[in-house]
Amino acid sequence: MFIETVKTPGVASLSYIVGDGDDAAVIDPRRDGRAYLEIARRRGVQIRFVLETHRNEDFVVGSCALAAHTRATILHGKGLDFRYGESIGHGQRVVLGRLSLTALETPGHTDESLSFVARHHETGDSPLAVFSGDALFVGDVGRTDFHPERMAEDAGALYDSIHEHILPLGDHTILHPAHGAGSVCGDGMADRDISTLGYERRHNPALQLDRAAFVARKLDEHHEKPPYFRKMEQYNLEGPPLGLPRREPAPVHIGHLRRAIDGEGPIIDVREPQAFAASHVPRTVNIPAGMLPAYAGWFLDHERPVTVIAEDRSQLEAARTHLWRLGYDDLRWFQPGITGWETGGNPLGSTRPISVHALHDTLDRVRVLDVRKQPEWLRGHVPGARHAFLGRLPALLDDLPRDRPIVTFCGSGRRAMIAASLLERAGYEDVRNCFGSLAAWRAIDGPVETPKAD
Amino acid sequence: MFIETVKTPGVASLSYIVGDGDDAAVIDPRRDGRAYLEIARRRGVQIRFVLETHRNEDFVVGSCALAAHTRATILHGKGLDFRYGESIGHGQRVVLGRLSLTALETPGHTDESLSFVARHHETGDSPLAVFSGDALFVGDVGRTDFHPERMAEDAGALYDSIHEHILPLGDHTILHPAHGAGSVCGDGMADRDISTLGYERRHNPALQLDRAAFVARKLDEHHEKPPYFRKMEQYNLEGPPLGLPRREPAPVHIGHLRRAIDGEGPIIDVREPQAFAASHVPRTVNIPAGMLPAYAGWFLDHERPVTVIAEDRSQLEAARTHLWRLGYDDLRWFQPGITGWETGGNPLGSTRPISVHALHDTLDRVRVLDVRKQPEWLRGHVPGARHAFLGRLPALLDDLPRDRPIVTFCGSGRRAMIAASLLERAGYEDVRNCFGSLAAWRAIDGPVETPKAD
Amino acid sequence: MFIETVKTPGVASLSYIVGDGDDAAVIDPRRDGRAYLEIARRRGVQIRFVLETHRNEDFVVGSCALAAHTRATILHGKGLDFRYGESIGHGQRVVLGRLSLTALETPGHTDESLSFVARHHETGDSPLAVFSGDALFVGDVGRTDFHPERMAEDAGALYDSIHEHILPLGDHTILHPAHGAGSVCGDGMADRDISTLGYERRHNPALQLDRAAFVARKLDEHHEKPPYFRKMEQYNLEGPPLGLPRREPAPVHIGHLRRAIDGEGPIIDVREPQAFAASHVPRTVNIPAGMLPAYAGWFLDHERPVTVIAEDRSQLEAARTHLWRLGYDDLRWFQPGITGWETGGNPLGSTRPISVHALHDTLDRVRVLDVRKQPEWLRGHVPGARHAFLGRLPALLDDLPRDRPIVTFCGSGRRAMIAASLLERAGYEDVRNCFGSLAAWRAIDGPVETPKAD
Amino acid sequence: MFIETVKTPGVASLSYIVGDGDDAAVIDPRRDGRAYLEIARRRGVQIRFVLETHRNEDFVVGSCALAAHTRATILHGKGLDFRYGESIGHGQRVVLGRLSLTALETPGHTDESLSFVARHHETGDSPLAVFSGDALFVGDVGRTDFHPERMAEDAGALYDSIHEHILPLGDHTILHPAHGAGSVCGDGMADRDISTLGYERRHNPALQLDRAAFVARKLDEHHEKPPYFRKMEQYNLEGPPLGLPRREPAPVHIGHLRRAIDGEGPIIDVREPQAFAASHVPRTVNIPAGMLPAYAGWFLDHERPVTVIAEDRSQLEAARTHLWRLGYDDLRWFQPGITGWETGGNPLGSTRPISVHALHDTLDRVRVLDVRKQPEWLRGHVPGARHAFLGRLPALLDDLPRDRPIVTFCGSGRRAMIAASLLERAGYEDVRNCFGSLAAWRAIDGPVETPKAD
Repeated sequence: MFIETVKTPGVASLSYIVGDGDDAAVIDPRRDGRAYLEIARRRGVQIRFVLETHRNEDFVVGSCALAAHTRATILHGKGLDFRYGESIGHGQRVVLGRLSLTALETPGHTDESLSFVARHHETGDSPLAVFSGDALFVGDVGRTDFHPERMAEDAGALYDSIHEHILPLGDHTILHPAHGAGSVCGDGMADRDISTLGYERRHNPALQLDRAAFVARKLDEHHEKPPYFRKMEQYNLEGPPLGLPRREPAPVHIGHLRRAIDGEGPIIDVREPQAFAASHVPRTVNIPAGMLPAYAGWFLDHERPVTVIAEDRSQLEAARTHLWRLGYDDLRWFQPGITGWETGGNPLGSTRPISVHALHDTLDRVRVLDVRKQPEWLRGHVPGARHAFLGRLPALLDDLPRDRPIVTFCGSGRRAMIAASLLERAGYEDVRNCFGSLAAWRAIDGPVETPKAD
Repeated sequence: MFIETVKTPGVASLSYIVGDGDDAAVIDPRRDGRAYLEIARRRGVQIRFVLETHRNEDFVVGSCALAAHTRATILHGKGLDFRYGESIGHGQRVVLGRLSLTALETPGHTDESLSFVARHHETGDSPLAVFSGDALFVGDVGRTDFHPERMAEDAGALYDSIHEHILPLGDHTILHPAHGAGSVCGDGMADRDISTLGYERRHNPALQLDRAAFVARKLDEHHEKPPYFRKMEQYNLEGPPLGLPRREPAPVHIGHLRRAIDGEGPIIDVREPQAFAASHVPRTVNIPAGMLPAYAGWFLDHERPVTVIAEDRSQLEAARTHLWRLGYDDLRWFQPGITGWETGGNPLGSTRPISVHALHDTLDRVRVLDVRKQPEWLRGHVPGARHAFLGRLPALLDDLPRDRPIVTFCGSGRRAMIAASLLERAGYEDVRNCFGSLAAWRAIDGPVETPKAD
Repeated sequence: MFIETVKTPGVASLSYIVGDGDDAAVIDPRRDGRAYLEIARRRGVQIRFVLETHRNEDFVVGSCALAAHTRATILHGKGLDFRYGESIGHGQRVVLGRLSLTALETPGHTDESLSFVARHHETGDSPLAVFSGDALFVGDVGRTDFHPERMAEDAGALYDSIHEHILPLGDHTILHPAHGAGSVCGDGMADRDISTLGYERRHNPALQLDRAAFVARKLDEHHEKPPYFRKMEQYNLEGPPLGLPRREPAPVHIGHLRRAIDGEGPIIDVREPQAFAASHVPRTVNIPAGMLPAYAGWFLDHERPVTVIAEDRSQLEAARTHLWRLGYDDLRWFQPGITGWETGGNPLGSTRPISVHALHDTLDRVRVLDVRKQPEWLRGHVPGARHAFLGRLPALLDDLPRDRPIVTFCGSGRRAMIAASLLERAGYEDVRNCFGSLAAWRAIDGPVETPKAD
Repeated sequence: MFIETVKTPGVASLSYIVGDGDDAAVIDPRRDGRAYLEIARRRGVQIRFVLETHRNEDFVVGSCALAAHTRATILHGKGLDFRYGESIGHGQRVVLGRLSLTALETPGHTDESLSFVARHHETGDSPLAVFSGDALFVGDVGRTDFHPERMAEDAGALYDSIHEHILPLGDHTILHPAHGAGSVCGDGMADRDISTLGYERRHNPALQLDRAAFVARKLDEHHEKPPYFRKMEQYNLEGPPLGLPRREPAPVHIGHLRRAIDGEGPIIDVREPQAFAASHVPRTVNIPAGMLPAYAGWFLDHERPVTVIAEDRSQLEAARTHLWRLGYDDLRWFQPGITGWETGGNPLGSTRPISVHALHDTLDRVRVLDVRKQPEWLRGHVPGARHAFLGRLPALLDDLPRDRPIVTFCGSGRRAMIAASLLERAGYEDVRNCFGSLAAWRAIDGPVETPKAD
């Protein structure tokens, strides 16, 4: 009997393969299923079931491809009109050797949300572990803001799911949620993949509240919902489009790139922000490869090909995997790379950095644009800064005053670099990125203001 | 904050790498430390500590090499005269980022046994997990028979360690023991790497007893102690011998093998028992590669080179790794392999199989030799069979009657094949191995006798 | 500028990836194209062309899938009605950076056969290397027996291709053929991947002859053409069937296997012959995994699923890859394996081996059945043996006398084991396999007869 | 019979593993020998010999470790007082199955230089391939400037070695030299690993000359000899120091780094030059990981630990491997990385880039410092630039005028970034790096001057 976790960095999703004897099930698989197949081969088991705790909205779920490859049965909750797989109801279970997985209906995050309880047949009712989907996380609970018109109702449903179905499984039950720290599906998740219901009952802040306080807390939360979620919801309801095999990115040469710069969709430079700052193709947007899961979905359109500039093939490969997990399948890469662009005598963009020391000395002569999320902003910012969440920056690009240099700013200087590249693309001429940003600012004891609200 | 398990098949040992932020510790490392280094690199942490829950006796622990490579500090319990590392006492702890590991003295299996309790600094006293060494397993507890003269005392000490130090950590605490199912360090371990203290408190048979019943149960247990344990105890007290790098096995050709057959140490054929049965070099001993961890230590001497016949390089590599973990460093392999031997026109040994059907029909005309462990034998055997545990068979080799064919027998026919090869090597001429053995016998409803005692 | 060889064991095919600067081409890709993609990524090149030297008949060529994945252009020779790709004519070339590949029409093996000549643009006419397809091998030339009605004509065409187009490229030209030793596409190939035209001109036996002697030699050759070639010819003309993704083999349990044994298609046991000999599921056919490329195509039908018994997942994986390269896509595996069968108390087959020593002593009391290829048989055999090439054995299975034990025999005992399993499946009761076979027989100085003809 | 090439990027060294049957030899192994062991395992051969074509001076040869691991015999040429291995003389040979390797004494590059000729025993005298060490390269010949006092003599000896011993092997012989393009051991090597003696005889410029012209050409060459060569010569004569295992780099934290900055040895930032330019720890030296093999040996001392700043663990690993091959074994890494430094509020260095367009417009207001090698400089440079080869820059650091901004310049902007970091470390304040450098300058048709001499 085994449980192995497959964690997807970036979207911070946690998927699982569990099994006993000859059989196994995969819970919430990501799109690239090789990891599950390799574990199954190593352990000599056959994947019989693919279980979905809920219709994921932040990445393309890999159920259909994995099931086609392994002949497994896909099971999900009732109440959504899935175009693939079958449904499993409250109390029904699948059996894998001596292990059973019983479905619990645990709505709140979404209506059809399920949890799965693992039990060993010899020890009867005692649960070993619970796969809680987006209902209960380590250190937090799922977001309940997808239906703005019934947020209180959903928050209450989640409270009931947790308190009536999950916690009663017992303190000794191991907790395996669908997301970890860094996910857009919750905010306060602990950076720790290890927990039990007993540990959460004691220490999870959301579990220390009564129903009314819990609902009030949930109503007070502020989450972002990137535009690409809509596509993910469609893919994960209907199954992702078939027919298109996963292909190598198409190479693009200098002439093509020159023409593409002025096309509609942005060209993405996935190098580290420092590398981008010193030298880049003008009018490209910097999204470092590791930040694609969190930010590509704000700026890229599924209907257009995505062109990528990367430092080398291995960085391109990382970018390709991230983008593919988000459903961006038509990828192009600038094969000559930045060195090819530079040695070709082409115009070069560069973004001057500003240190926190220099910022401190010139604070009244620049405009600080802080692009962090609202909750971060609310916890403190540089005096006089303006707040605009990075994901929503494109809508404000015509609005910002051009009278002084703009200093882009965030928690560490990485999101700020994305913002700087967007501003430069929109024609702002004196943009400076602050590497280190608020962390460095605090380290040099720069003054911090705490706003009442945005 | 993370915990990753590195399981060593065969010896069924469980080691762990745990860490947070920039730092990590490894608990009970195996000899080949690359797995820990790769995890550390992937996670970007530095291994600062190597922790030993106790002086292992069933494999060469990798602490010294890993510490030399990473500059980590080795820590173990007090009361043994370790020639390397430092000691850590009850209640002392090491800190890794926000994670602490506190030592608990939990004697019983050995005097210096420690458990380590993982806690997150934000949640104060609440343990996240306990690394229980050989004190508490999933479904069993550690053996307490290493000092025959004070077995009751040791069993009582173990009871106290578990009930006074480990279980009080709370039901919600995740359990990470040093061995899993298949280990010679316990008998009733569950085939499951997942548990919590609460789950064990409810379902572990050894935890359902009061102190007196617990001690009585422990006194009644029967464990084997293979002769190689003595070498492991020495290595793990003094550190394994330095100076000898890990080398490729030296190739041996046909002429050498012919001479080696009549040498003192046995030549080991690590192919599957079926392959050995049909065709082998006469006077070699079959120990299939995957069974080396359990049986090599009964038959092989650390002072002599070990010569191996394998099906191919990858099986040789598997054998080499298993043997190296047990301290057998001077390895030779028969490069031409069995096909080279066969095509050279050399004499071939073969062992005739006997099916359970045929055995059933001729039971009174053969002698069944059952080589399973005593507890298995006590749970039932073929009527009229003789019992001799495989590990102790060499001492009996002159003793067995030669008047009828000997049928070697075990649970599935694999250990029986080892026994058959030992008998043939000792000059027994009519030996037949029963593939399927007791499992097949029960499947065809063969009669089973249950003895009172051996 | 680089050339890397990707060799496919079993079918002994040699494919190549060649490139310069940003671009590369693949020549005669195998079905599983990951190796080419990995080389292309490591070297930072884009695969622009897939070149086929001829329509391969011994494996499924991977051109269509590789081209779909990379957007490459497929090019092959004129004169066959290919349903995919484009054609390239004599003297036309593709350019990859500073490297060019010029097509030469070199018919003889097949009508549309091409060779490709690699040149560096700075050194003008001097060839660097030639990719000679199945025209010229290291130590041999291609077979010319595919059109029995015009064998002399084809042999003459091949002579002309080699002497008028290939050898004139110059002694210094490196030779890269499409097959190496072990291929069914030629018989006398050297076990060496290294050659130049100058080396072959001096040492290749087929190049030491004038045209008439060359044609006479070719007419005198005897090659086998396994029945699956027809399917490969169809796939490689039309493109392999789409729509069916590569899937995991479907698991089969004991009940299914019992029923399948008596089905129409044989069940294949891919373990080593020794393992099969001692214990197997009755009525199964032994084809060791590594021998599948050479023999599966004689016994297996593309219209029926293939059921496989393997020692473990890694051997299953090897078998699956071999079978997939031959177009057997619908695979099942017996998940419990031989140990599952044995412990279930099921009937066991076993094949008694006979040593060459015993054979020597009983030669007049047995019938030796030698299943090697005709040219091997002609080079010498055991006196009194009967010859029947393994691939053609199924047609003779009712014919063999049953009055004495049949000893299956080949070069080393491996093909003989396949034969023994076929005989037992056909109801022959006293079959013995001779491990070591002719090699061992010669080693003990057994008498050898050399026939005039079969 | 096989030959596989193991190429080491950076030092551009080519090593080989060749074998037949059960046996193999490795020629000029690099320090990390795992690649050879993996090939040997895959092919089922035993490495019997380690052959050295000459005492390498540009990297630590791996003969001793590989021989200890495999029990192989090391063989090298006569005339140097090697402290390990044995010598092999002109015409002596080693045998591997059907393959022989015959030593030819081919002095010129060094006195004890050998070539090895591969032959198949069936084809008598005909060579298959020659391993020519540093005597004959693809497109060039070895350097002969190691003894300035007898350069003409050495050049003549090399001419004789090539014309009397190597070329007579025949046009059809495949050529396998010890270095490829990019090596410091020659200048005009072709970027191509493929050649034969016939191809070189026709196209290698150095082989088109008579003896006198050849010697004159060699006397006219200008090669650099980095200071670390001396250490390599010592290691490769005496064997590298034992006792020190290969260890993980020791982590260094912010406090340590602050103190180390002002230590004696430079701190190396191995990120790409663009990333370094925008943000770096002040007073560190940029040597991108891939450029370490060519430039680390100019600036780093074997007696001091080397501290490295890298983008991530995988870049650190690449740097570590490169440095280890050059004998820099005591490595430290700045674990927090540049982001840790930035968010700590520490002072940041940055180097402003200058585009070729801007340089063109301000050429008379800056000083261009061109740091390429002399032969590159002689082929053309920016008017008014000053030349100082990068490796020799440290000696000139007090000398450069500070009256105008210094623009560092090379072929593409990468070596120029190293130079810029050295200048900034030495206190120059207005340094600008020209990304694209001469390649970009030519692309925009900037004026180029061709000097008579340096």
